[in-house]
Amino acid sequence: MNEEIRKVLESVRDGSMTVEEALLRLKIQPFEDLGFAKVDLHRSLRQGAPEVIYGAGKTAEQIVGIIRTMQENGQKQVLITRLDKESAELIRKSVPITYRPEARIGFCGSIPEPDGLGRVLVATGGTSDIPVAEEAALTAEFYGNEVIRLYDVGVAGLHRLLAHKEEIMSASVIIAIAGMEGALASVIGGLADCPVIAVPTSVGYGASFRGLSALLSMLNSCASGVAVVNIDNGFGAGYYANMINHREKKA
Amino acid sequence: MNEEIRKVLESVRDGSMTVEEALLRLKIQPFEDLGFAKVDLHRSLRQGAPEVIYGAGKTAEQIVGIIRTMQENGQKQVLITRLDKESAELIRKSVPITYRPEARIGFCGSIPEPDGLGRVLVATGGTSDIPVAEEAALTAEFYGNEVIRLYDVGVAGLHRLLAHKEEIMSASVIIAIAGMEGALASVIGGLADCPVIAVPTSVGYGASFRGLSALLSMLNSCASGVAVVNIDNGFGAGYYANMINHREKKA
Amino acid sequence: MNEEIRKVLESVRDGSMTVEEALLRLKIQPFEDLGFAKVDLHRSLRQGAPEVIYGAGKTAEQIVGIIRTMQENGQKQVLITRLDKESAELIRKSVPITYRPEARIGFCGSIPEPDGLGRVLVATGGTSDIPVAEEAALTAEFYGNEVIRLYDVGVAGLHRLLAHKEEIMSASVIIAIAGMEGALASVIGGLADCPVIAVPTSVGYGASFRGLSALLSMLNSCASGVAVVNIDNGFGAGYYANMINHREKKA
Amino acid sequence: MNEEIRKVLESVRDGSMTVEEALLRLKIQPFEDLGFAKVDLHRSLRQGAPEVIYGAGKTAEQIVGIIRTMQENGQKQVLITRLDKESAELIRKSVPITYRPEARIGFCGSIPEPDGLGRVLVATGGTSDIPVAEEAALTAEFYGNEVIRLYDVGVAGLHRLLAHKEEIMSASVIIAIAGMEGALASVIGGLADCPVIAVPTSVGYGASFRGLSALLSMLNSCASGVAVVNIDNGFGAGYYANMINHREKKA
Amino acid sequence: MNEEIRKVLESVRDGSMTVEEALLRLKIQPFEDLGFAKVDLHRSLRQGAPEVIYGAGKTAEQIVGIIRTMQENGQKQVLITRLDKESAELIRKSVPITYRPEARIGFCGSIPEPDGLGRVLVATGGTSDIPVAEEAALTAEFYGNEVIRLYDVGVAGLHRLLAHKEEIMSASVIIAIAGMEGALASVIGGLADCPVIAVPTSVGYGASFRGLSALLSMLNSCASGVAVVNIDNGFGAGYYANMINHREKKA
Amino acid sequence: MNEEIRKVLESVRDGSMTVEEALLRLKIQPFEDLGFAKVDLHRSLRQGAPEVIYGAGKTAEQIVGIIRTMQENGQKQVLITRLDKESAELIRKSVPITYRPEARIGFCGSIPEPDGLGRVLVATGGTSDIPVAEEAALTAEFYGNEVIRLYDVGVAGLHRLLAHKEEIMSASVIIAIAGMEGALASVIGGLADCPVIAVPTSVGYGASFRGLSALLSMLNSCASGVAVVNIDNGFGAGYYANMINHREKKA
Amino acid sequence: MNEEIRKVLESVRDGSMTVEEALLRLKIQPFEDLGFAKVDLHRSLRQGAPEVIYGAGKTAEQIVGIIRTMQENGQKQVLITRLDKESAELIRKSVPITYRPEARIGFCGSIPEPDGLGRVLVATGGTSDIPVAEEAALTAEFYGNEVIRLYDVGVAGLHRLLAHKEEIMSASVIIAIAGMEGALASVIGGLADCPVIAVPTSVGYGASFRGLSALLSMLNSCASGVAVVNIDNGFGAGYYANMINHREKKA
Amino acid sequence: MNEEIRKVLESVRDGSMTVEEALLRLKIQPFEDLGFAKVDLHRSLRQGAPEVIYGAGKTAEQIVGIIRTMQENGQKQVLITRLDKESAELIRKSVPITYRPEARIGFCGSIPEPDGLGRVLVATGGTSDIPVAEEAALTAEFYGNEVIRLYDVGVAGLHRLLAHKEEIMSASVIIAIAGMEGALASVIGGLADCPVIAVPTSVGYGASFRGLSALLSMLNSCASGVAVVNIDNGFGAGYYANMINHREKKA
Repeated sequence: MNEEIRKVLESVRDGSMTVEEALLRLKIQPFEDLGFAKVDLHRSLRQGAPEVIYGAGKTAEQIVGIIRTMQENGQKQVLITRLDKESAELIRKSVPITYRPEARIGFCGSIPEPDGLGRVLVATGGTSDIPVAEEAALTAEFYGNEVIRLYDVGVAGLHRLLAHKEEIMSASVIIAIAGMEGALASVIGGLADCPVIAVPTSVGYGASFRGLSALLSMLNSCASGVAVVNIDNGFGAGYYANMINHREKKA
Repeated sequence: MNEEIRKVLESVRDGSMTVEEALLRLKIQPFEDLGFAKVDLHRSLRQGAPEVIYGAGKTAEQIVGIIRTMQENGQKQVLITRLDKESAELIRKSVPITYRPEARIGFCGSIPEPDGLGRVLVATGGTSDIPVAEEAALTAEFYGNEVIRLYDVGVAGLHRLLAHKEEIMSASVIIAIAGMEGALASVIGGLADCPVIAVPTSVGYGASFRGLSALLSMLNSCASGVAVVNIDNGFGAGYYANMINHREKKA
Repeated sequence: MNEEIRKVLESVRDGSMTVEEALLRLKIQPFEDLGFAKVDLHRSLRQGAPEVIYGAGKTAEQIVGIIRTMQENGQKQVLITRLDKESAELIRKSVPITYRPEARIGFCGSIPEPDGLGRVLVATGGTSDIPVAEEAALTAEFYGNEVIRLYDVGVAGLHRLLAHKEEIMSASVIIAIAGMEGALASVIGGLADCPVIAVPTSVGYGASFRGLSALLSMLNSCASGVAVVNIDNGFGAGYYANMINHREKKA
Repeated sequence: MNEEIRKVLESVRDGSMTVEEALLRLKIQPFEDLGFAKVDLHRSLRQGAPEVIYGAGKTAEQIVGIIRTMQENGQKQVLITRLDKESAELIRKSVPITYRPEARIGFCGSIPEPDGLGRVLVATGGTSDIPVAEEAALTAEFYGNEVIRLYDVGVAGLHRLLAHKEEIMSASVIIAIAGMEGALASVIGGLADCPVIAVPTSVGYGASFRGLSALLSMLNSCASGVAVVNIDNGFGAGYYANMINHREKKA
Repeated sequence: MNEEIRKVLESVRDGSMTVEEALLRLKIQPFEDLGFAKVDLHRSLRQGAPEVIYGAGKTAEQIVGIIRTMQENGQKQVLITRLDKESAELIRKSVPITYRPEARIGFCGSIPEPDGLGRVLVATGGTSDIPVAEEAALTAEFYGNEVIRLYDVGVAGLHRLLAHKEEIMSASVIIAIAGMEGALASVIGGLADCPVIAVPTSVGYGASFRGLSALLSMLNSCASGVAVVNIDNGFGAGYYANMINHREKKA
Repeated sequence: MNEEIRKVLESVRDGSMTVEEALLRLKIQPFEDLGFAKVDLHRSLRQGAPEVIYGAGKTAEQIVGIIRTMQENGQKQVLITRLDKESAELIRKSVPITYRPEARIGFCGSIPEPDGLGRVLVATGGTSDIPVAEEAALTAEFYGNEVIRLYDVGVAGLHRLLAHKEEIMSASVIIAIAGMEGALASVIGGLADCPVIAVPTSVGYGASFRGLSALLSMLNSCASGVAVVNIDNGFGAGYYANMINHREKKA
Repeated sequence: MNEEIRKVLESVRDGSMTVEEALLRLKIQPFEDLGFAKVDLHRSLRQGAPEVIYGAGKTAEQIVGIIRTMQENGQKQVLITRLDKESAELIRKSVPITYRPEARIGFCGSIPEPDGLGRVLVATGGTSDIPVAEEAALTAEFYGNEVIRLYDVGVAGLHRLLAHKEEIMSASVIIAIAGMEGALASVIGGLADCPVIAVPTSVGYGASFRGLSALLSMLNSCASGVAVVNIDNGFGAGYYANMINHREKKA
Repeated sequence: MNEEIRKVLESVRDGSMTVEEALLRLKIQPFEDLGFAKVDLHRSLRQGAPEVIYGAGKTAEQIVGIIRTMQENGQKQVLITRLDKESAELIRKSVPITYRPEARIGFCGSIPEPDGLGRVLVATGGTSDIPVAEEAALTAEFYGNEVIRLYDVGVAGLHRLLAHKEEIMSASVIIAIAGMEGALASVIGGLADCPVIAVPTSVGYGASFRGLSALLSMLNSCASGVAVVNIDNGFGAGYYANMINHREKKA
């Protein structure tokens, strides 16, 4: 930042840049304003990952508009989460997207070759947690991670989980997804030697209070390497897993 | 009940009992009124277990009064829970009691020989849960149960728990005690083939909200044979375990 | 477990089993992986009761798949809870099941002769609690228990409850089901000499907060022999009652 | 009110009152301003009962100041609630008051002869609820009601309550006070034919959440004649009972 | 009660009643069992008011069944609350009922002449509270009370309320109904000299949390003569008002 | 007020007004009673702003009735909030209104020229907050304020917000609208030198608990000039902004 | 901002400023880093008000350090909130401050002459709310506002409030402070024509849940001109009132 | 695991290991049982990090016992969290430990040279969050990470945070610690391109509800790379940061 400003100043001193140009340069807005949304075009540079569109509550037209702005600015890879089938089909009439109903995700571009440090393991307590898991898994794959799926391994039948101890031990990051009592995160956290991202789900009834029970459980995990994202936030977990799995040596 | 009333009626018909005597008999109060407390003397008959004194919030004098009333009515075995050291010593000056500080329990009489169907296993997630566990264990012992203690076997270090798989498999009833995320109940519930009584504890901080997290976890257990008592209610769990462990064939 | 492993080891030593065979034997997975679910086939051995399918959130096809896997592995008795009428009819086209709409339960096999220690009493506070009660009652019957139903005996009309004092006194286990203020569990708990399993229901409005009021009441019961399961969890209560009612002498 | 204003207006018209006097009369403040408190002197007229001083959080000096202002304005009967022993003794040095520690109440004047429609019954679930009960009972007595105390009759030992069925049936108003599961209000509400005022108490631990459990129970009572006041609000219940017990025919 | 038993005993002694007859007499069930509901026929005697049918969650057939049982036992006046239009029309095909949609109430029999001590004032904060208010008002009328309606007098426009000060001052009981901040109860409580029954409603949005805000407000009312019933419980308030308005001198 | 009463009194003294006329004058009701609603006609005088109709839960007929009463009393400017399209069209058949679907607002009269102290800035965290924002913006415009809209400037992309620093610095009042974590209010509060009105929205999922998360965030803002209105209360914010933006020197 | 940067750039172009100087000027940190705190020295410029020190949780030494840094940078007026007596006395040994125990506030400098648009009215529901009120009042005075105090005017005795209707009508801003049911804000909001800042207090017991009840009430106020700050946040209210009372015409 | 078992089996087959030895080997308990605690000695192997002792609720004697067992098993590096000064001094009499009061941490061994991928940035919103921050920072340092501290950079004074943009951009992992509204995590999450670990603190008052407000904010962060640990859980954050900062290429 410092260097960039210095260069601008030097150009002004040298006369190779006018004051007006410099002013503009120092204040330039790194996003495009669509009126209803401000598309962030520098994000890929700033955060190393393309912009994501949260589909819930947006019309198909709005989503198409955002995608086009991105593509016109050179962004090939676009992820749309919480996208229902109907919207996906409407969007497809305007721009080519791939849609995966089990993950409620649409995307432009293609799933890249995995290039992370290791594998991302996505585990669920039950079968009802699978939609959240697929959102997490596909997000991680979209950002270049190899993903292993391990579904329906809840702690009430521990042998199902222990049968996969080796996958757990060898993973680079683990996403543990569970509703109801959410104990999966603690048990996996105690077995694994890598960071565990816990995702509470709203699966359950009665005193599960739509995910509150699982959320509190996971926050109180007595295993040390566990951090938590919002209830049902599969995307957030997949994104975070990608960040961890792409850590590199920094000066 | 039916039979008892019939006998009274027959005696009235036969003239062997006056109407006044019968009235008295039908209405007799099976408890003694101490003013501040109504001591339940028929409970042993009605529920098969002696009255218990909840010590918290009662003065040593009040407790002594209740014990004496019980003893005068033939009750030898008396249990006093939530009893602090100071009160215990004050009480001991008036009536002989045994005091166990680790369980915050005092009692008159002696621990009987176990005569239950099997063993009661008392397990805790951590060392801080031990006071609640001791309250449960001693209560169960006081009612005639053999108790096995298995402390600090929380799910974050699963091997500690699995090393005791045989004790778990062979127990008649299990009391699973844990604070924080309370996952112990689910994991044990999945391993055991006997009823599990889950006791959430107020151990923890932050989002444990004084036991709420563990309570919700245990209520939402995906393992089937798990029922829950109040936060920190070691006595309730021990008492309930005793009930289960003393089931007999009923006509 | 210990003994089984010893035998394997002795066979290896004796040469009657190859290392590969032993490895397989020690690691064999006691469940079958259907992709979306891991069917637990050893549970009957491990916990003395057949696997149960939680029907909510599963498609008819998934349920049929799980049933078939179970049946191919010799499991005759299968219980499906939270099953709506439509799914039941779809399933029936593929596998023969009996469906009981009042309990939202389907099952393969037949209701066995009761062989428990005594009777399971299922009581409700009001008529709106009956669906939860039927789930509990049918579950208990399916596992071999004689069940007595006692509906609409809420504490606001105490004489309705007291008229059945003898059934209460003679039960082996009682399931007390109530919404709103949930006082039924405490009152029955004070009358009975057997374990009471309390089931809060989401029946009510306003400050019942979908069962929270009844849940808290039951957890705070001043009667000692009361344990609680999740809101509306009729199955859990029936299953737990069965466990208690089938206790046997253990070495 | 209407009449009073009419008279003022007529006096102005007649010249028997100047405009200034009338203005004053119409605007006169029916309270005295002590700076830290505005003492309400017309309340006795307006509401048929003397002002009450809520002692908690007021210094002895402030309380003395308020009492004196009241007495100078002719108020003989003054009630001070939530008054601790120390403050009571300090106050007594300045103005003569009677102090009842078990109710944490002080008062000037004397307990009047009861003149209500009938008796106020004050019942508690346990012995720990007695301080709240005494606050209610003494308040009712101070306002001229005959009070019957019925303590430690919680629903877990129903026979203790039923032994007093006649007192319950013959009361004019009942105050039902309980912590923990708060079921007492519902059971009494079902037995009695008079209004029941339910007072949840903060007695209990764990999931009683300082009275929340009892509060919700009482609000959800399935018995119809039950209304609820704040947790531990013995005064409010006694005051409300007095209001009901002193209803008279109104034109 | 005492007297009744004495007579039975004397008859047995005299031989005018056999032991079997006496047994029956002492244990007779004062309700009729319809299987799905236990109709309480002695309630009118016991509590001075006919049984009420809570319509929500009951089918038209069930309600007809209960009404018929009541009528066959001589009960002419029957109230059905929370009854929707469709059910009301279905019921009307079998038994003649009057239906008032604005109160969601149906009833058999007729509104009696008022015979209470005075008038019941029903006030609401806004127009959206009217359905709850009508439930309260009609209930009170059905039990023989004169009712004054005072709607849309919320505290944000205090002059609307103060314009009716005389009705407030002269009422015998007041039912104050409000959602959102629920301040109406406190303001009326400060103006009136009679008991106020506060009914929080679920009217509002956002932080009203479906009536929780109004409920807490009303429980914390700084005015003394205020007691609270459940959120939206218009019936409970009307019933309680009737009880207060029909107090009589008791021995 | 004082002066007005004095004049009435003087007129009575002078004989230029009868006692009856004076009585009427002193008690005249400044609102009209429509039965279901009490229309407040003096509000414009009292509070400097026309009455607003909260459309939710009112029928089109009721709304038309209220509008007509207002218009007959000279009120030209009427605002109807929370008005859906269907009702708006029904109303339009009877009285001419302008309807703005994006704000769910209808109004009679026209948007006046802005005459406030400065500009009202309306900012949102995301695009889903826009309906609430439009309700706030249009309300402010309707009351005579110039409004600047700044949408989708959530704190996760700080540069989008900072690019508009000048608009923030130069605003007279700012309305900060956000769901989820609600951090927008604090960040703007730290940048601006004018009062910030924070509006939490129910936008989000999981642990946003329908706006609770944003509400708590905003209440706990560490920036000093932030006050909060109810969840989704765009109208309240616009109205409050107008009040601030029209402050004038007061004697 | 824009202008300032332009000037720097022009100076660089003109050679009157070196690149290094310009860099420094553009990046200068407008705060001083004390290690444990970053003292904000430009705030007065940025927000038109001096920095405030939140005293709770800071040692006297830390506070002295912050004050000195401020004073060395020319800041004469410093406000320290939540300051207990002991700390105040310790601080006074190092720097001269005025301490007001009733407001728990200390300050350097002097209370300025009021120069706001009008008066700030500070009203409380009870005497226990006075500490919060004094914090608000003194804060407003410190920022140059005339303050009127109106204490103990809770809605349960409405005449106490109405007696001050003229002060309410003539205020420029009102701070309404109340615990328990918090109705004061709504009632004042309905009477006043100026913005009302509502401050819930933690005064109360039981279901007041430490201010939650008052907080929810105030957020749900049916009066339009009410915004809310955090529980017990007297400072925030005083600061916000100052902002409103010092609005000026903006270009 | 597989390989290890194979080797044991081959040894048994070869006769180089007896069945008893093999049994022992397969079942060996990788922890030592101290009665009150089961010390985990293989954790360093299993999870790549030494055991940590949670000091709260343990006596100095218990802690000394656990340390000694660890040291006897070759563990040099031991971390004790939540350790108060008094206990630390008692422990130091038995075993040499370093104590850091600002972090409430004691440790055996020494802080190693940092060997992570990059730097761990620890940022706090205010000065009161520093104890939690120090716990996080020291934990990270103890596990071999370079830590940068950035305290008191809350979002209400954004320039304080933005002045450190380069440290934020260049960090490998960031721990964002804040109480009250917890917005720091979102703002940093939007600026950084590395994983952010959010730690809500219990700092604040009123509606912060002991950290609940910050917790919900952080879970709802609209920035994508944010995961959350328990309230005040500085250790958990430091441990998790270490895990991320030590990721390596995995096969």
